[in-house]
Amino acid sequence: MAKSWSVLDTFEMNFRPLVVIELARGTKKETIEWFTQRIVDKKSDGGAQLLVKPLVTENGDEIIYLVGASHLRLLLGAETVGLVKECNDSSMRTFTYSSRKTFKDFADDNHNFLTMAECQYIIKHELENLRAKDEKIIPGYPQAKLYPGKSIVRRLLTSGILVQIFPLHDREELKKLRHSWYGRVKVRYQPLDEIRCYFGETIALYFGFLEYFTFALIPMAVIGIPYYVFAWEDYDKYVMFATFNLLWSTVILEVWKRVCAIVTYRWGTLLMKRQFEEPRPGFHGVLGINPITGREEPVYSSIKRQIRIYLVSLPFVCLCLYFSLYVMMIYFDLEQWALDYHEENESNFSSLMLFVPSIIYAVVIEIMNRIYRYAAEFLTSWENHRLESSYQNHLILKVLVFNFLNCFASLFYIAFVLFDMKLLRQSLATLLITSQILNQFAESLLPYWLQKRQKKRMKKRMCSLKTDTDLSLVEQVNLEREMGTYFGTFDDYLELFLQFGYVSLFSCVYPLAAVFAVLNNMTEIYSDALKMCRVYKRPFAEPTANIGVWQLAFETMSVISVVTNCILIGMSPQVNAFFPDSKMDLILTVALVEHLLLAIKFIMAFVIPDKPRDIQIKLAKLEFESLEALKQQ
Amino acid sequence: MAKSWSVLDTFEMNFRPLVVIELARGTKKETIEWFTQRIVDKKSDGGAQLLVKPLVTENGDEIIYLVGASHLRLLLGAETVGLVKECNDSSMRTFTYSSRKTFKDFADDNHNFLTMAECQYIIKHELENLRAKDEKIIPGYPQAKLYPGKSIVRRLLTSGILVQIFPLHDREELKKLRHSWYGRVKVRYQPLDEIRCYFGETIALYFGFLEYFTFALIPMAVIGIPYYVFAWEDYDKYVMFATFNLLWSTVILEVWKRVCAIVTYRWGTLLMKRQFEEPRPGFHGVLGINPITGREEPVYSSIKRQIRIYLVSLPFVCLCLYFSLYVMMIYFDLEQWALDYHEENESNFSSLMLFVPSIIYAVVIEIMNRIYRYAAEFLTSWENHRLESSYQNHLILKVLVFNFLNCFASLFYIAFVLFDMKLLRQSLATLLITSQILNQFAESLLPYWLQKRQKKRMKKRMCSLKTDTDLSLVEQVNLEREMGTYFGTFDDYLELFLQFGYVSLFSCVYPLAAVFAVLNNMTEIYSDALKMCRVYKRPFAEPTANIGVWQLAFETMSVISVVTNCILIGMSPQVNAFFPDSKMDLILTVALVEHLLLAIKFIMAFVIPDKPRDIQIKLAKLEFESLEALKQQ
Repeated sequence: MAKSWSVLDTFEMNFRPLVVIELARGTKKETIEWFTQRIVDKKSDGGAQLLVKPLVTENGDEIIYLVGASHLRLLLGAETVGLVKECNDSSMRTFTYSSRKTFKDFADDNHNFLTMAECQYIIKHELENLRAKDEKIIPGYPQAKLYPGKSIVRRLLTSGILVQIFPLHDREELKKLRHSWYGRVKVRYQPLDEIRCYFGETIALYFGFLEYFTFALIPMAVIGIPYYVFAWEDYDKYVMFATFNLLWSTVILEVWKRVCAIVTYRWGTLLMKRQFEEPRPGFHGVLGINPITGREEPVYSSIKRQIRIYLVSLPFVCLCLYFSLYVMMIYFDLEQWALDYHEENESNFSSLMLFVPSIIYAVVIEIMNRIYRYAAEFLTSWENHRLESSYQNHLILKVLVFNFLNCFASLFYIAFVLFDMKLLRQSLATLLITSQILNQFAESLLPYWLQKRQKKRMKKRMCSLKTDTDLSLVEQVNLEREMGTYFGTFDDYLELFLQFGYVSLFSCVYPLAAVFAVLNNMTEIYSDALKMCRVYKRPFAEPTANIGVWQLAFETMSVISVVTNCILIGMSPQVNAFFPDSKMDLILTVALVEHLLLAIKFIMAFVIPDKPRDIQIKLAKLEFESLEALKQQ
Repeated sequence: MAKSWSVLDTFEMNFRPLVVIELARGTKKETIEWFTQRIVDKKSDGGAQLLVKPLVTENGDEIIYLVGASHLRLLLGAETVGLVKECNDSSMRTFTYSSRKTFKDFADDNHNFLTMAECQYIIKHELENLRAKDEKIIPGYPQAKLYPGKSIVRRLLTSGILVQIFPLHDREELKKLRHSWYGRVKVRYQPLDEIRCYFGETIALYFGFLEYFTFALIPMAVIGIPYYVFAWEDYDKYVMFATFNLLWSTVILEVWKRVCAIVTYRWGTLLMKRQFEEPRPGFHGVLGINPITGREEPVYSSIKRQIRIYLVSLPFVCLCLYFSLYVMMIYFDLEQWALDYHEENESNFSSLMLFVPSIIYAVVIEIMNRIYRYAAEFLTSWENHRLESSYQNHLILKVLVFNFLNCFASLFYIAFVLFDMKLLRQSLATLLITSQILNQFAESLLPYWLQKRQKKRMKKRMCSLKTDTDLSLVEQVNLEREMGTYFGTFDDYLELFLQFGYVSLFSCVYPLAAVFAVLNNMTEIYSDALKMCRVYKRPFAEPTANIGVWQLAFETMSVISVVTNCILIGMSPQVNAFFPDSKMDLILTVALVEHLLLAIKFIMAFVIPDKPRDIQIKLAKLEFESLEALKQQ
């Protein structure tokens, strides 16, 4: 197999495979040669200066390539992507190769200075920034056009020559991580730093948020239990619980920003400079001059995009919302019909029929959510956003609004149109618990089981091929490339967001929701961890400094929940009894309280600083130093 | 007088006086010598490397010094303060001496490359950054302690040796500016760029905001006139007017951010890096190590400050607010008493008596505002904020809250407790118009008259001393140092803020308020311009990129006005007539509309980008270039 080593391996024999490139079956020889050559070429010649090694599969095809890099190359790459590392004086600084000696744990022979996730992130960045020089097409594929500066990997991906690029698991590290993460049944904090080293900041931050959020729900859960146990029905107690809940949710969201700043400062991502964003792979347009870079690249008129957003997507979303409401009305009709039927001919069959509408509705909601998700992805992609971040924001907004309505519309209807608190409590409990059980099952246990079965089959096939039972690199790669792809934290955050809605929107009606949420999240941590470690391909690390648009989404939910809770309390018979003479006084009081609560929320959000004082000082210190350095120049 | 030139004038004969330093009468000779020497000393010796020239006054004292600088020194200073200037390719860039040739209008002999305001700002910055080396005290004043790194000028100011530092007017430029600003009676835009060249960005931005705000009020005023002329009393029309008003106020505040970005981009301040903020002059504490700079300087525990803020200032402010409400209640009692008296014994005297309570209350409000202002300044200063910006923010917050309550509490009481719309309209009109007239008079006309009288007296005295009638430099300096000091745009913005309150809080009751506001602002522009040019000392230019905390204040006011207007409309008999059966439906409808309006406001604020697209592109381009430059390194 020695012949398949790239030219570079002459001066670096300890090739450590980091990233896998899978090409389409039957890719032309000249294309492969040109592509691998470009990856290996020196930086000064416009290459990526990485190491490449083909992996021979069972049928002898060379369609899988392993990419690695020399230690020096990785260090230089760390400088390019702007990694921030801890220095010897325990401050965080942007890594540069020339100042490498000042960094903590740096030694020329310490290959663990950069975590494996960081190395893989660097290689991904370098591969994506491998740009066409004067090639007009991809050799061998005249229909795959190139222009100077176009990312080669992105063009290969969009023209289907490149099937996928993914980072390899490190079986040793993964085993260690699994052990400390969910190996022992013991209640303790998650090993966030280890997760971050292995999966990168975005995923570690999700688990951090999940854990934080679970802890934050505990006070609500603890206060909620006696309401259930002693069946407290005094509404002054409910008012207290709701008030506490509303202020508490503001506090936890504000404090999360501080926690997030502490964690991401330690990880260095809080200080990382935002890189210039390249167009996302799917972006297309006529060749023009980018006004920002002055480079030739596809441009697409912003007005056209606005037209697509406001004249097509927006009406479509509204239509979907309307349709969802329409389906909800049909559900209530069915429910009524089932009730009538049960009353008329009381039998075992008829009482079973009572459940039918709910089941149908639950299934329909699930189907609608899925169809809508595809539609939203299609539409957002058709809107042709230049940047991945703007694509994501538009997608999240579309999906959030629809999911919010789809999940909560029936509850709102029950609460504010039917005024049926008992039914509300019952529906809330059913929806929350079933959605939690379904999610846990569909999200990790089912894929885990499928994956295990496939692994067995694969192993069997492998065993028939070879005789040694130890899983070699070839087997590992073949196994991992068949694994599902983890498409980011979107669905996980969405689940938490909807859960937060169930807990806070109607918290004064069903205080037990927080208890179920806490219980669910405790297992959710384990099932999500299992999913990350066992079910999916390893995802590329993605540096991030916060949870992005989700912070806003949670804050909006907590504002809406102030309104809903105030109305619910205002509608309760106990509170109504306080104002026997005049409904008007009641409503005015409720409105006043609501406005006061909202005002307090906004003031609290304003008064609590987003970053703890010591982080603020550290950031100010860095800023001061860079100002001083500029002066010295 | 040649002997009094500093050493430096040997190589720069064309000394142009820019800044005046006035020392206390009887300052010791050694102090003056040391201080002027430090100003003149080379940068490498820790001096400011400026030019100094004493000005001999009538009685022969040398207590006034003129400060200037060589052209080269000013250019280097422009680099130090980080001025942003236009380049030949019409992009905006931070000025550096080495790249000076690439800047528009730069020529070695073009002394107008930097505006006079910029030169004065540079000199102020250099003087304030003149720091003690190894001096322990100010020579001649053993009680005025120094420590290495302490700003000498700030210590001289706090120990009373330095009376004031102010920039000189440029009589020629001022004449030109006056002519184009308010010389001709003709409706047109203000010469904002010229104002900015002469007075700096903060003041120019205030006038820009004043003008923008006036234009923005015109649609409201135009729509408001027919309501008055045709005495429209249909509440559907009022509802329309109020809805338009509320959305309009959101739009204008969002659009202002964009206008502000356009203007400050042109001025270069949008791109200016924030300088490291030094402690404000009044800040004191024990000597310690600043954790950010690592330098020795006074430090003051943040916890102590928090205690002072929350345990002393906050209760005091609350007490003042309570007192203000108490006074208001007394006013209403007096008003009632006057009414009763008038009803009992109807006479000319008694009908005159009807006005007495209002007059007393107006005077008391004014007195309370002034006393409170002193108290707020004292308290905020006692809170011992390290930074001028944080001092200003705390002061603004204190004053804003009190002024808001003091001015609007009686209107709120009339509207929501007495439910007397007629009285509300009457009080609103009276308060708005009288406050406008009083303000215009007290703010500029009175000081202008006083100043003119003093000038005459001064001229007389001068004439008795000398024979030539042309105002020499000595006379100019003597005249200007006696002029009042302009303490920043605080009071001007406060006036606009309260006006915005009068216009928007009760806009559906009194649509004519916008008309009065527009009329007032049209004269306000002239009287403020007069004030700046004729009444006050020239203020130092202060670079700024936005109107700071006022943006937030105006936005908060526009949120509050949604609430007040919705309640007012809900209370109107015409709207009540729509819901003859149930008050409850009415209130619920009003609450729903209010929440919808608030939601629309927030969505609009979110959707409208803060910077226009072309400015965004220009900023992104600069950021991209600096990233690329970093990579090249």
